[in-house]
Amino acid sequence: MPVRTAEATWEGTLTEGAGTVALGSGAFEGSYSFGSRFEDATGTNSEELIGAGEAGCFAMATALDLEEEGFEPQRVHATADVHIEEVDGDFTITQIELTAEGDVPDATEEEFVAVAENAKQNCPVSKALSGPDIDLTATLA
Amino acid sequence: MPVRTAEATWEGTLTEGAGTVALGSGAFEGSYSFGSRFEDATGTNSEELIGAGEAGCFAMATALDLEEEGFEPQRVHATADVHIEEVDGDFTITQIELTAEGDVPDATEEEFVAVAENAKQNCPVSKALSGPDIDLTATLA
Repeated sequence: MPVRTAEATWEGTLTEGAGTVALGSGAFEGSYSFGSRFEDATGTNSEELIGAGEAGCFAMATALDLEEEGFEPQRVHATADVHIEEVDGDFTITQIELTAEGDVPDATEEEFVAVAENAKQNCPVSKALSGPDIDLTATLA
Repeated sequence: MPVRTAEATWEGTLTEGAGTVALGSGAFEGSYSFGSRFEDATGTNSEELIGAGEAGCFAMATALDLEEEGFEPQRVHATADVHIEEVDGDFTITQIELTAEGDVPDATEEEFVAVAENAKQNCPVSKALSGPDIDLTATLA
């Protein structure tokens, strides 16, 4: 099985410094800063990166689980909203709100919700992200 | 505190379908597939995305912790190697190997290692990623 790599470099202090992150595949390299993480400055931040990891893993796993249940999934769209807040003085990722919409011929919404809930609980990134609550809302398109 | 967003869309079945992921900031949108995740195909994958989230969070947190210890960090470079393996039939992210190199005038390697270890344990993304082991190797440049 592959080992996947990413890198980050931070130069300087927290509020006056700046950083870059890069994906090992070469698909993306970009800048981040205190401002892009905690304020409105341009750049990426760790929360949207883990949100992308979670949304991507969940969407793929939902398609697999739908196939295993005998459906032919056309499209699964997922949005991950990642909440970071101060809890007892420490920045904490408290919740990931996952919103899924499926285009799945012949599935009822109840069937889609059950499959999506299973994927949410068992996809590899959900299992890795066992700190925050991951709350799912799933609907058919 | 901000809520950060990312999206993914998967179209089709697991092995014949394909997906896209996008960061809410607009910094990156790219494709992923079964092949880019589990084989050698071009594209991104969830493991390098969460690796980037972890490396970015850790590097920034190490700089902050160094400042709080009275040092003036010049540069913290971090690499995250994310291991996904089959465990009892389920794909599982088992380990994140974090490698850190610091350029920190007046710090001993022992001091740098202690600060980096604290950042590894307490940065928000490490706390969220409580599933896998996160193992740190830290050295001064």
